[in-house]
Amino acid sequence: MKNIYIIGVGLIGGSLAIDIKKKNPEVIIHGISRKETTLDEALALKLIDKKAILDDVDKADLVIICIPVDATVNILPAILDKIPVTGLVIDAGSTKEAICKAVENHPKRRNFLAMHPIAGTEHSGPSAAISGLFEGKTNIVCEVEKTAFKLQEKALKLVIDIGMRIRYMNPVAHDKHIAYVSHLSHISSFMLGKTVIDKEKNERDIFDMAGSGFASTVRLAKSSPEMWTPIFKQNKDNVIETLEEYINNLTQFKDMMRQNDFDAIYNEMKNANHIKDILKGIN
Amino acid sequence: MKNIYIIGVGLIGGSLAIDIKKKNPEVIIHGISRKETTLDEALALKLIDKKAILDDVDKADLVIICIPVDATVNILPAILDKIPVTGLVIDAGSTKEAICKAVENHPKRRNFLAMHPIAGTEHSGPSAAISGLFEGKTNIVCEVEKTAFKLQEKALKLVIDIGMRIRYMNPVAHDKHIAYVSHLSHISSFMLGKTVIDKEKNERDIFDMAGSGFASTVRLAKSSPEMWTPIFKQNKDNVIETLEEYINNLTQFKDMMRQNDFDAIYNEMKNANHIKDILKGIN
Repeated sequence: MKNIYIIGVGLIGGSLAIDIKKKNPEVIIHGISRKETTLDEALALKLIDKKAILDDVDKADLVIICIPVDATVNILPAILDKIPVTGLVIDAGSTKEAICKAVENHPKRRNFLAMHPIAGTEHSGPSAAISGLFEGKTNIVCEVEKTAFKLQEKALKLVIDIGMRIRYMNPVAHDKHIAYVSHLSHISSFMLGKTVIDKEKNERDIFDMAGSGFASTVRLAKSSPEMWTPIFKQNKDNVIETLEEYINNLTQFKDMMRQNDFDAIYNEMKNANHIKDILKGIN
Repeated sequence: MKNIYIIGVGLIGGSLAIDIKKKNPEVIIHGISRKETTLDEALALKLIDKKAILDDVDKADLVIICIPVDATVNILPAILDKIPVTGLVIDAGSTKEAICKAVENHPKRRNFLAMHPIAGTEHSGPSAAISGLFEGKTNIVCEVEKTAFKLQEKALKLVIDIGMRIRYMNPVAHDKHIAYVSHLSHISSFMLGKTVIDKEKNERDIFDMAGSGFASTVRLAKSSPEMWTPIFKQNKDNVIETLEEYINNLTQFKDMMRQNDFDAIYNEMKNANHIKDILKGIN
């Protein structure tokens, strides 16, 4: 692999660029973005070697798409049209069903591998890119059997080299489960932020009372709406289901409090403590 | 101050013990606990110098109460009864109204200072105690005017020496606002943990999909039910109010999704992003 084109050079694209270049110093990283200023920033930060445009991908050995998932669905077929017959396209989207569906009958379907590297921070843009973001993290690969074997090998080597472990899953199962362990967390955090801001916006001193616990719980409310709106749109049914269950659990907790059933409250928390064992190893 | 008695030598009591001893090597830290094994652990970890019992506080220069808030309400009057006339009692509870009320007419009310050091982790017990926990954190002091001036001075010096900044607030306002910036976060986290565990408990592999964002949001679900049940009980009305607002916001978000109003979804998230500015300086 010589020429790698990264479409979207923010948190994910930029962080991939850093670590791929580190492991493969011989490659040339070309950055593509809708915004010229983003590319200038990525170049200044040395995330990319060169600026490029979409038409250039006819020279790509590898294209990595790291843009909002609605934009991915829109441009993926055209990217596949353009790449060389030996070219590989991968994406990094947080949803997988709509993306896989967008190219299911594409003549070059075998040149695409659907991925979801589960890594990130609440920050966004080229300046959010960091080395080591993917170290020890999970990369979900969907419909691996639909990708040409030689290209699978290339893609997996690339992500394993930057420290990721691979899990295989079908796109429908991916979207269902990721709604619980990622999408719901974001909404719980955004709405926690809203609840506190609405109440306390005129009492800035109150935020002096906020400790590290609040900061941790509300951290994801800093995430990019540009990135997350299309995720919720594409995964609407699953996300609504998780929200209903979450709201039911909160309502039940509130009702227990109203009824002064603090033994039940205690038990609810004791059971949720079980998350300790489950989270072992995640930081 | 020579003899300091800490009642409850877990996360908060133990961490206070470490830093107070570090700043005041001449003091003797006496530990008191319902459980002998806890005291043995605290002694082995060198959090305390000596084991003690409640009756010993008649020799105390300072008593720090770091136990669940219902137990604090129960024993605080008796502790005040027992301490010397020059003794000082402070507490570290996450609620303040019931605690202040418990001693409002106590003849030694002026020997008590109500505090809430806003610091902690999701861990508990003596082994959770760490140095530096209070560095740069806020300590809410309630009804400062009801404490003897000389004793106020002693207490404030003690906590300022270990890195805390002081904010003064009345107990009613404290309990109202802390419900938003701390108590609600804990419930949102406990119920997020429950929602995901209930759904995914038979699919352990799914937790491979959980990233750092989920871990951060659900971190507080590891907190101690022994500590938190009495907090929710004492602050019931305020907590129920925050829960209602939170549930309303989540329901509204869900309804927007159902109605495919993703412009509104985008705006909700954009507004919640404002939490970035608010949280500056909290880690």
